[in-house]
Parts: sequence; structure tokens; C-alpha cells
Amino acid sequence: MNFTIQNVLIATFDDYAIVDVQVVDGAIAAIAPSLEVIGTAINGENKLLLPGFFNAHTHSSEMWQRGIIPPLPLELWLAQLYDFAPLDTEKVYLSALGTAVETLLCGGTSVVDHLILIPGKELETIATAVRAYKEVGIRAFVSPLIQDESLTAGIPSGETEQNHEPYFRSTKATLELIEEAVKQFHRPDEGVSLLVAPTGIQLCSDALFQGCIELSNKYNLCRHSHLLETKAQEKLAQEKYGCTAVEHLKRIGYLGDRTTLAHCIHLTDNDITILAETQSTVVHNPLSNLRLGSGIAPILKYRQAGVNVSFGCDGASSNDSQDLLETIKIGSILHNVTDLDYQHWMTPRQAVEMASLGGAKGLNMANELGSLTVGKKADLVTYDLTSLSLLPRTDPIGLLILGRPTHAVESVWVNGKQIVADGKVTTINVDELRQQLFHHSQWDTKRKSGTVAQIEAHYRSIMGL
Amino acid sequence: MNFTIQNVLIATFDDYAIVDVQVVDGAIAAIAPSLEVIGTAINGENKLLLPGFFNAHTHSSEMWQRGIIPPLPLELWLAQLYDFAPLDTEKVYLSALGTAVETLLCGGTSVVDHLILIPGKELETIATAVRAYKEVGIRAFVSPLIQDESLTAGIPSGETEQNHEPYFRSTKATLELIEEAVKQFHRPDEGVSLLVAPTGIQLCSDALFQGCIELSNKYNLCRHSHLLETKAQEKLAQEKYGCTAVEHLKRIGYLGDRTTLAHCIHLTDNDITILAETQSTVVHNPLSNLRLGSGIAPILKYRQAGVNVSFGCDGASSNDSQDLLETIKIGSILHNVTDLDYQHWMTPRQAVEMASLGGAKGLNMANELGSLTVGKKADLVTYDLTSLSLLPRTDPIGLLILGRPTHAVESVWVNGKQIVADGKVTTINVDELRQQLFHHSQWDTKRKSGTVAQIEAHYRSIMGL
Repeated sequence: MNFTIQNVLIATFDDYAIVDVQVVDGAIAAIAPSLEVIGTAINGENKLLLPGFFNAHTHSSEMWQRGIIPPLPLELWLAQLYDFAPLDTEKVYLSALGTAVETLLCGGTSVVDHLILIPGKELETIATAVRAYKEVGIRAFVSPLIQDESLTAGIPSGETEQNHEPYFRSTKATLELIEEAVKQFHRPDEGVSLLVAPTGIQLCSDALFQGCIELSNKYNLCRHSHLLETKAQEKLAQEKYGCTAVEHLKRIGYLGDRTTLAHCIHLTDNDITILAETQSTVVHNPLSNLRLGSGIAPILKYRQAGVNVSFGCDGASSNDSQDLLETIKIGSILHNVTDLDYQHWMTPRQAVEMASLGGAKGLNMANELGSLTVGKKADLVTYDLTSLSLLPRTDPIGLLILGRPTHAVESVWVNGKQIVADGKVTTINVDELRQQLFHHSQWDTKRKSGTVAQIEAHYRSIMGL
Repeated sequence: MNFTIQNVLIATFDDYAIVDVQVVDGAIAAIAPSLEVIGTAINGENKLLLPGFFNAHTHSSEMWQRGIIPPLPLELWLAQLYDFAPLDTEKVYLSALGTAVETLLCGGTSVVDHLILIPGKELETIATAVRAYKEVGIRAFVSPLIQDESLTAGIPSGETEQNHEPYFRSTKATLELIEEAVKQFHRPDEGVSLLVAPTGIQLCSDALFQGCIELSNKYNLCRHSHLLETKAQEKLAQEKYGCTAVEHLKRIGYLGDRTTLAHCIHLTDNDITILAETQSTVVHNPLSNLRLGSGIAPILKYRQAGVNVSFGCDGASSNDSQDLLETIKIGSILHNVTDLDYQHWMTPRQAVEMASLGGAKGLNMANELGSLTVGKKADLVTYDLTSLSLLPRTDPIGLLILGRPTHAVESVWVNGKQIVADGKVTTINVDELRQQLFHHSQWDTKRKSGTVAQIEAHYRSIMGL
């Protein structure tokens, strides 16, 4: 459907302008004042129009455990997460819907779902998430989370001999599975892309990374991974490779301009240079990094070094929401305490660019997405500037990024198709979703993780606690 | 009005229970399952009942500048704030209403407004804020912000000779003004208390502090102040007193069990011991501290030392919202990166206690407010556990504190009077407020602060930038 948004506020280089925006065949056709109306006329008065943001790293099915995992560092948190991970695809479906809805209602039009696969139902898990995202209409980058080592291998051995059980599925079988998924579901033109997405050096062999590189080259797939989220991973990389994880990933060829790396907290200056040289993208997950005590990623250094940075909510068990605006706010202001010179601090406008164009760059789509540019796809969001949370009128982007907007998203279009109107998702029944989430869950405040009990003493010893 | 909430979820020592709660004459009369209905019966099914939270430090009129002040440290930010501070009481009225509404809709039933006074209209400013809070019905602790030194005196001199203009009002006149305000407006039984509230050691003489101590003793008033928010203030205290600010405040007798101190970032271990010994309360303003790059307050140390801690949003120009739930979330998880041992990290239940009982303690009202206890005043909040943002069902308090609740507050009572129902404030017309905020403001994205331009070079030099 073609349409023209009239008299809408947009950001210019260093100010704002009121313009009309024509959208034809899913793309931005013109941006200028007083344009001819093509298609439906949409009143943009007192609305701010921005390119859609990218939720550039999450795990949708973690929604089932949000709010429940106690304060624990990643390695123990992960043990508890997997002890209680949902095992039926109906839950995968509902949490993918929920993740999409929450992302849309805070200005996100794209989601990178580092999707946890149900053992034995891997393709079905992927099919289910793809179905959910297509129903909602959000642009989806489905990134099946794979590994070929068992969970305990992710904790450094220290001076002890550790024997880890072999992972239940072979590296070869895992790669075949991903190739099959790519054949079945990788449809960028329909708004669903698949990524290769080994979980990270802590649980993946070189053979798995190399197989992913081959698939990435063969099918032109973007690459995703966690990277150096914790001090334990920093130690582990030295144990496994005798060098940093970044140096190792460079050596095996995983880095590049279509590689996005979630977290990136414990990097050396040389590692940062490598990310810049390889044009890799950092996905900043500030809330998860605080919640798990992982650390503060050196985002100001990345920006100074020319490393592309985007934002992710991370899974809802370590955040514990999917509100991209909260992530962008905290991911902007958090770094002010890491550098005394305020001239290095991030501005709200820079944060908007990171959340939009930064996300597009990491997914190799900067020519098609991430800014209000004629010819780009119409992934667009309008914000209601008469919302109480965006008043009084001062600076619209300042209010949006530094404030706490509620009810602020008014309309969302993905590929020119409207999927949010008047602040409500129009493609699925959200009230029905809410009821389903209620009925598929129960208050569960006394559970204990057996795996945490098994591994905690070793973890504390290795970390010097 | 008496009422009985039936079948509502409350937190017990380490679990939850479903109970009835009777409220008679503004106080909690009974809490137990299956009580007789006294007064109106209220359905509490699928709702969580908590004591109201305290927004224990804010500056309401900063709402007029939220979203607009660029990334600057406190001393320069303050210069810009005062260059554009509102000068008419109509704006003071609207922003006090806005602050009250936003506080209520995120679970706050009390607000400590460190109120910026319009020069020459001081009593009128106080009267206006009191009127607004009474209209909304929120419990208000109005703390007129006073100083007796001019703004530039708040920046250390370093090795330069600094001549600061005298402040426009004498210390004596300021103290007389506060005494007059106390006589006119201090009505704890009607839900409005006045506090003595010198802005802090950076802009106040000992004579002003001592005058405030006398008023506090004479009229039984609580005491409030900013404390050691920035490194510049840490330096300044050494310049002014040759000791830390905490040591000085102890010496002059300002600390005590009804003294709340906002920020408390740059304290020594000995300072922390002093706060514990004097039973002073720290008000934690994590978002403002990040936004202004002030630092991360050592909250885990305070808790370990037995210092009472509560939460504040701080003014909306340095946050830039008044969402107490956001403040509590970030103020809980932020500290996980300051201590590797997760056994020291704050739990969501501890955060709830800090936000409720911690706030009450600091205001010398722990016997009357801050917990669900028979005999205490009925400052109560129910949260809708069927809200999408609190689903799926896991742990209610975990979802509320670690998630990002939206539309979650269902009802609010202050002193047993209902002032929020079905998620909407019932005492004032919020839609009318929204329109007034819109019409009293305009987009203003190009303004420059003359004072910042004057003092920036000195600031950078003193701070070694």
C-alpha cells in the first residue's frame, strides 16, 4: 500500500524539519515539504518520524523466565536458564510473538533472535519462530543458537583437570541442520533472514566456527556470536588458545563487515583495533551486562576507534524486558561514568543513529535500512509528541532517548506495511497473546537449579570468590 | 472511606500469600485470609499489593527542561538549568502535578520535592507546589532548596583566586523565609510536610546549615541535602574545610536519623562509618548519577555498613523522567558490576524494601509508613499481574523490579484515599494537564547557555580536562 505522511517532524543534520514522506512499493520515494499525496494521506502533525530501530541481540524464549532467575553471574545464570528452558514449540511461538510485540512498541522494526533450539526439535523451533515473526510482520533475523561443547566447558578449568561430557549432537550434524534451515527459511525478500550463530568461543570448537564461515560464504549469510561477555570467558580464551578470543576469531576468519558480536566487554586495546580493521559490529546489551554483573562494555572507546556499535535487549531473562528504548537510554548514559571528559559522551542523536543505522550496518543492510533516505525500505516509526511522557516540548529526540517514553509509539511500518496503528499492533490479537501467556505459566517462586548446585563451588574457586 | 481488598497477593518473609486487607480510617486494620468485609469490597484477584514507594529526591520544576540539556557534568549542567529555569508559578504548578502523576503511576505514594524557588516569589512557589500536591493527593515532603552562595562558588578554585558575587538574599532572610513557610504549610496530618533543605556544602555557609538545624529542632522537621555528588564537590570540601564534607557535616551536627542525603557518591570508608553511626539515610539517584557522569554510588558498601538507603528519581532534567520503577531497577542492577561476588548483589525484594521502608525511615516515619503492617497508614499500591509486561507468570516482584512494567499500576491509595483507579489518576484531569504542558512549551532545540560559556574554561582546567 502506498501512502504519504504529511507534516511530520524529522531530524535533519543538526536540527528538525517538518516534511511530507511518500512511501511507494515499500520504499521511501520522496522526503520534502508539501509533496503531492500518493496513496493514503496520513496526518503526521505532532509526530516524530524515525527509522525503525534494531533489537540486534535477543533470545526470544527467555521471556518464559523473565523476572525469576536470582542475581547470578552469566555462567551460573545460564545453568539455571537451561535447567528450566521451555521444551514445547507452543511456548517458542508465544514468546516470539511477545518479543516482536514488545520490540515494535518501543520503536524496533527488526529483531535478531539468537534462538535457543529445543533438543530434538531444532527445525521445528526455527519454523515456529519464523511463523510467529511473519504473523506479526516484524523484520526478523533468526539466528539459531548452536554449540558443540557441553555447558560446563564454558567455565575455565583453572589448575584442575576437567572432564566434560560430550555435547549430545555432533558438529557435522549441527552444521547440516543449519544448512537445512537456511534452505527452508532464509527468505530476505520476505523479511526473514537466517544467520549463522555459534554461541561463542566458550562452547564452540573451531570446526563449528569454520563450518559456519563456509555456510556464511555459500549462502551469503550474516554471522552472529556472543563475545567476551565475562571475565571467565576472558580466562577461558587464554586457556583454550593462548591468546585473546578476538585474536583467535580473526585468525580463523570469523570477523568481518557482516559479523555482529554481542556484549564485547573484556577486550584489550589490540582487540578493539582488530574489530575496527575487520569492520565487525559490536552489539551493546547494557542491561543484561549490569544484571549479570558482566561489566561495562567500553563503548566510548569503540566509537573513538571507529567500531560500529548497535543495541540489543538480550534475552528477557537477563534484562528482564524487551524495551529497546530502555536499552538505548541506559546504553547511552552508562558510559558517562567511564570517562571524565563530557566531550566524549554520547548524544541522544548519536544513540538514535547507533540503534538504526548501526543495526543495519551490522546486518549488511546499510544500503537498504537504517535511515530516512529516499530509496531505502520503509521501516518507519512515528512517535506521538503529545504523549505525557514526551511533554513538555523541549527536544524531541532528547525526550525520547533520555526520558522514559510510555505509549509513545504511534505507528510502525515494516517494508511499507503498517503493523502498528494508534499504538496497537494490528497484525495479531495482543489481548489473546496476553491470555495465552497467562494460561501457559504459573507463579513459581521456590524453584532451585540442580545444575547451579553442582557447579557453583568450582565456579567460585576459579573466580577467586 | 473504609474498604477491604479481597484475595490479593502480598509478599511474605520469603514467599507470597493471598490475603484480604482491611483499611479503616486511613490505616491498615487487618491482614489475613478470608476477613469480614468492612466498607467497600475490592477485588484483588491477580493483583500484587505493595506499600507505596518513596520518590525520595526530586526537583519538580526540572520537568520543564527534561530532554534538552546536553551531556554535561553537574556543575555545567546546573549553569544551563538555571539559565532557563521557569520563572512563573503556573509552570511550577503544572510540573508539580506532572511529577505527582508520574510518581503515582509507577508505584510511588510519597514525593520529596527539593523545590527550586523562583527568586522574589519564594513563598508563592512553595504555596503553589503544596496546592498541586494536595489536589493530586500524593503525600508530599516539600523541601525548599536554599543556598547563600552564588553558583560559581560551587566549583573548586584550584590555585586561582576566585571572586564570587554575593548571593542575592542574605542567610538571615533565607532562614526567616523557611520559618514562615513552615508556619504556613507544614501540616503532616494533612499529608504535607516541610523539610529544611540547604542544597549542599558547595553553595551553603555553615551559618545556613546551623540555622536549618535550629529550625529542624524547633519544629521537628526532617533535614535534606545533596551530598558529594561529584568529584568537584569532593575537592571543594577539602578546599573549604580541610576535611571531607561528611566529617564537616557531622561536626556541625547536620547528620542524624531524620537526615536524608541525595547522591553520596564520593565518600571515604570513614565517611560511610559516620553515616551509619549517625543513622543518616542515603537517597540513591542512579539515573541522574549516570546521566551527569557523577559516578556510581557505593550502595553495596552502604548496605554492608548498615546505612539506610532509599531511591530518588532526581529532577527530570537529569534523568530525564520520573519513573521510580526505572530508578529502582537500575539502582539495583547497576552495582553488580562493582562487586564480583554475586552473593553481595541486591535482590528485587531488598530493592522493594529500600524503596518503601527505606524511604519511610529517612523521613522519620518508619512507624507509620513503608510496609504492610497493621496499624500503619494505608499508602498502598496494587499492580495488575495480567499486564503484558508482567507476563508470563514467574516471580511477581522479580518481574516488577527487573522488568520494565508498563500500565502495571492498577490502584493507589494514600492515607486510605484512592487516587488512582484502573491505572488512571482520579483526582485531577490528566488529559487537561497534558494539554497545558503542551501549550506552555515549544520545541526549543537550538538554545545556548551563556553561563556555561563563561565558566567552562575554568571548570575544564580545575578538573584536568
